[in-house]
Amino acid sequence: MPESSPEPVTIIGASGALGFGVALRFARAGVPVVIGSRDAGRARETAERAAALIPEGSFAGHDNADAARASQIVILSVPFRSQSETLTNLKEALLPGQLLIDATVPLAAAVSGKATRMLGVWQGSAAQQAAEMAPEGVRVVSALHTVSAASLTDLEHPLDQDVLICGDARADKREAALLIERIDGLRCVDCGRLEMSRTTESLTALLISVNARYKIHAGIRLSGLPDGLWD
Amino acid sequence: MPESSPEPVTIIGASGALGFGVALRFARAGVPVVIGSRDAGRARETAERAAALIPEGSFAGHDNADAARASQIVILSVPFRSQSETLTNLKEALLPGQLLIDATVPLAAAVSGKATRMLGVWQGSAAQQAAEMAPEGVRVVSALHTVSAASLTDLEHPLDQDVLICGDARADKREAALLIERIDGLRCVDCGRLEMSRTTESLTALLISVNARYKIHAGIRLSGLPDGLWD
Repeated sequence: MPESSPEPVTIIGASGALGFGVALRFARAGVPVVIGSRDAGRARETAERAAALIPEGSFAGHDNADAARASQIVILSVPFRSQSETLTNLKEALLPGQLLIDATVPLAAAVSGKATRMLGVWQGSAAQQAAEMAPEGVRVVSALHTVSAASLTDLEHPLDQDVLICGDARADKREAALLIERIDGLRCVDCGRLEMSRTTESLTALLISVNARYKIHAGIRLSGLPDGLWD
Repeated sequence: MPESSPEPVTIIGASGALGFGVALRFARAGVPVVIGSRDAGRARETAERAAALIPEGSFAGHDNADAARASQIVILSVPFRSQSETLTNLKEALLPGQLLIDATVPLAAAVSGKATRMLGVWQGSAAQQAAEMAPEGVRVVSALHTVSAASLTDLEHPLDQDVLICGDARADKREAALLIERIDGLRCVDCGRLEMSRTTESLTALLISVNARYKIHAGIRLSGLPDGLWD
């Protein structure tokens, strides 16, 4: 069972659909949520909107820099076209020892292309770009690419899917996994080094393609895994 | 229920681990299997080895060209380093109207790199290379990248996973799906156009990474899909 008063988590970009859904689900799981937005007013508005949906939740809203300072674990959930700029603006806010969970997906939609296609990122993936840009000592993993915003926001929707986690240090992935698994119905799977994020990010585009065909919000599940993936 | 005497399927590269496993499973499902290999003797040997494991199965072994002529549906299951050469050699054998199911994965292992990394294929994916190289009128879809050879060959192992199918024509994908779904425990999902094969192929590398971590043979399952995916 999760302990009763967990550390807060910061979600940069929680005004966006994925970040907002993640915020709701964490709050419902008893995790205090700090909402970051480029604009402090918008962050507070988003926190109020979230609180209206999860009255028992704990929400605060700050501009990105103040939000990033408020938690040990920071989730980056922004459109790819803002990822680089956001990380540049967080250079002074993020501190060594913090854990950054990057959920950015370089969909071609960022440059007016299709959401079923990916951009080639010079570093290999959005997560690797985040790792390159994060201040030294900030640990970076990637996760949450394949969980649909619509499913997260629809609180009656059972999630029942896997979150694929990539990162270069097992301990960092485990820390992210133990947080994310507080959300009911999400199981985290260690998919290897951060470079594997090329593939986990591209699964978003694949799911968008599947969703368009079947008018659903599909998730990923790996079969054949044992229990106790993070023991 | 599958009809009682289905058309045969040809598997080019059935001496390899994936092709052999697929051959066994099809035979057990009552589908006659034509095994293709570069060398006719090796094909016959493989057919005998398969028949020893599935005595009720129907197996024939021919060199690749003769094998390709023997069925309406041809599965291409060769290492990426042989894909181009194999298709060049099949130019006279494959005929308009045939359906080619490409299962090739451009792992970096093909050039002595890691099996958790992918090669960039100029056409976008191995499947798109197959489509470019197949004779005009041969229909090309891709499938079967994420089903592990070990799970297929271990006949007691319940598969219980999805096969992600990409292709430019729904009817071609459906034809492949109805064949593949004769294998117990495999559900086929339409993942979109052939270009989406970039991602479905790269899932092999991702699963190899997961498998190495957990000492398993993972498969993919999409959650949230309705029944009757091919109705």
